[in-house]
Amino acid sequence: MKVGLKDLQSLTRQLYLKLEYPEAQAETILEVLSYAHRRGNFQSLIQEVAVGSPRFNAQRDIVMEKETSLSCLLDAGGNIGICALHLAADLLVSKAKMSGFAIVGIHNSSPPGTGPAGYYAEKIAREGFIGIVFCGSSKMVAPSGSSERAFGSNPIAIGIPTGREPMVLDMATSAMPVFKVAEALIKGEMLPPNVGYDADGVPTQAPKKILVSGALMTFDRGPKSSGLALMFELFANALTGGCLPGDPDNQNWGNLAFAIDPDLLVGREAFVKNVDRTIAYIKGLKRTDPARDIRLPGELSFIRSEQAIATQELEIDEHLFRAYRERIL
Amino acid sequence: MKVGLKDLQSLTRQLYLKLEYPEAQAETILEVLSYAHRRGNFQSLIQEVAVGSPRFNAQRDIVMEKETSLSCLLDAGGNIGICALHLAADLLVSKAKMSGFAIVGIHNSSPPGTGPAGYYAEKIAREGFIGIVFCGSSKMVAPSGSSERAFGSNPIAIGIPTGREPMVLDMATSAMPVFKVAEALIKGEMLPPNVGYDADGVPTQAPKKILVSGALMTFDRGPKSSGLALMFELFANALTGGCLPGDPDNQNWGNLAFAIDPDLLVGREAFVKNVDRTIAYIKGLKRTDPARDIRLPGELSFIRSEQAIATQELEIDEHLFRAYRERIL
Repeated sequence: MKVGLKDLQSLTRQLYLKLEYPEAQAETILEVLSYAHRRGNFQSLIQEVAVGSPRFNAQRDIVMEKETSLSCLLDAGGNIGICALHLAADLLVSKAKMSGFAIVGIHNSSPPGTGPAGYYAEKIAREGFIGIVFCGSSKMVAPSGSSERAFGSNPIAIGIPTGREPMVLDMATSAMPVFKVAEALIKGEMLPPNVGYDADGVPTQAPKKILVSGALMTFDRGPKSSGLALMFELFANALTGGCLPGDPDNQNWGNLAFAIDPDLLVGREAFVKNVDRTIAYIKGLKRTDPARDIRLPGELSFIRSEQAIATQELEIDEHLFRAYRERIL
Repeated sequence: MKVGLKDLQSLTRQLYLKLEYPEAQAETILEVLSYAHRRGNFQSLIQEVAVGSPRFNAQRDIVMEKETSLSCLLDAGGNIGICALHLAADLLVSKAKMSGFAIVGIHNSSPPGTGPAGYYAEKIAREGFIGIVFCGSSKMVAPSGSSERAFGSNPIAIGIPTGREPMVLDMATSAMPVFKVAEALIKGEMLPPNVGYDADGVPTQAPKKILVSGALMTFDRGPKSSGLALMFELFANALTGGCLPGDPDNQNWGNLAFAIDPDLLVGREAFVKNVDRTIAYIKGLKRTDPARDIRLPGELSFIRSEQAIATQELEIDEHLFRAYRERIL
C-alpha cells in the first residue's frame, strides 16, 4: 500500500518517544530510519512487529574512553547503536579533516544496532573521504565448514565520493540479512535454498528454524565470504571491545568506522575524476541482459530514495504497515 | 613430482638474473616467490611457461612522489610489482610505528604484479598491525550484469596478529584466480561451470576463451562480490594513479596497503587476546563434515608451507616443472 513519507516519520517519532528515548535521540533515530525507509528497507517496522523495539535503557551517556589525534574509542554505555555511531561518524569526520585519516571504535552499543551502515558511509563520503563502516550484530552466521552460529550478519558499508552523489556499497556478509529472514517469517513465506541451517545443521528454507536455533550461511556459501565475515567480525568487535563469538553477554555490540582522505594519495580531485571515469566505463559495458542496466552499488536504493522524496510516498506491505501502526497508536 | 625446495629457489634465482634484474631485486623476487611456492602457488612457473616472465625493463628507480607522516605515494617507474610493494610495506611499517596508522599507494608498477598479496599482509601483521593490501592486476573480470572485462582479479589480503602466527586471508575477487585459469589451459583441462564468459558473453568452461577475449565472473557471481571488486579496484588504482578500467595503457598497475595499530583502539594485547578467543571458538564449532576441520583463512597454505620447510620438498606438476626448468637451463 502507499504510505505518506511524513505519516511514517510521524509514527516512528511517536514510537521512539513512547519508548522513552530523549527527544534528541529520537530525532537521530528518526533521521537514520527515514534514510532506510526511503530505500525500501523496513527493518525497523519488522523489528517492532516481530519482537518489539527496545525501550530506552542506556546505563549512562556515551563516554570517550581513549583518544588520539587519529582515533577514538567510545563506550556507548548501552545506548542504541544508531546514536553511538551517529556521534562517532561526526567525531570521525572532524578528526579526518585535521589528519587525513581517522578511525573510531565503539563498544557497548545496544541492539537493534545502527540501522543501515550505508547511512554513515555516505555521510563520511559527502565530506570527500572514503568511508568504511563495520557493524557488529546478533551472532547468527556460521563460518564455512560449520552450521553453528558464530558471526554477526555484520554489514559492511563503503562510501566513495564521486562528482555527483556518493557511491555506497552496503551489504550483509550473510547470505541474507537477518531482517529479511524475519520478514519472510512474518509473511509466512519460505526462503530460497542455500540461505541457512536448522539446529541440526541441515539446510532449511524455514525462516523460523534459522532464527530460533539455526544459522545463516555467509554470502558466497564458501571460504571467501566466510574469511571476509571473520575479518569484519574482528574489526567490528575484537578491535573495539564488542562481544565475541560465544560470549555470554551478546548485547555489547561493537562498531568500527574509518575515513581516508584521498589527499593522502592521488589527491581528492584526481580520485573523484578516476572514480567517475571508472563508473562511466562500467555503465557503458555490454549487458548480459539488454533490458537490465548494470547497477552500481547502492544505485537502486538511491533511485528508490529519490522517488520517495519526489512523491512523498512509500510502498509498504499493507499487513506490515497496519501491524506497525496498531502497536504505536 | 617431488622437487627440492632449494632446487626450485636456485632455478628461480637464475631465471631472474638471466632476465637482467639487478641482484638485489632478484633476491626480493625470490623471497616473495618462495613464499608462494611453499604454499603450493606456482603462478610464477605457469607465467614463465605460458607467456614468459618479463625482462627487467624499469624506466627508473622507484620514486617517492608525495609523503606525509601517515602516507606515501610511490611511482614505481615500471619496476616489477613485487619490488615496489616490498619497499612500500617497509615504509608502511616504519610510518605505522610512529603514527599508529599508515597508508601507501603505488602506481606504475609492472606486470606480472606483486606475487601473493598475503606475503605483505603477513609482514605487516608480524609487526603487530592489522595489514590490508589491495593489488591491481590485468583487467579480466566482468562486473555483475555484464560479461565484459572491467576489473582486475584484484586480490585482497588481510593480515591479523594473533598469539601465534599471523592469520592471513588472501583471495582474488574473481571466481578463480587468473593463474588457475592459465594452469588449466596448460594442462588441457576444462574449468568448472560458472567461472567465466567467452567473447560473446556466453558462459564457457574453456580456459582459452576466457583468457584470450572473455572475462571472469566475480567470486559470488552476483552483486555483492561485484560491489566489493569495484571498491577494491578503486582502492588499488583510482586512489593511487594506477590504470583504470578501459585505459589503453593497462601496464600501469596500482597497489594500496595500509596498517592499523590496535593500540589506537582496544590495545594490542586485548586485540590479540580477542582474536585468539574468536579463533578458538570457531575451531570448536560443530563441523558440517566431521572429517573436515573448520579452516581459518590462510591455514591450509600455512600448513603446506611448514611441511615444505620441514621436508625441504615441494609437490609440483611434473610437466610444469620440466617445462619451467627447460626454459631456464
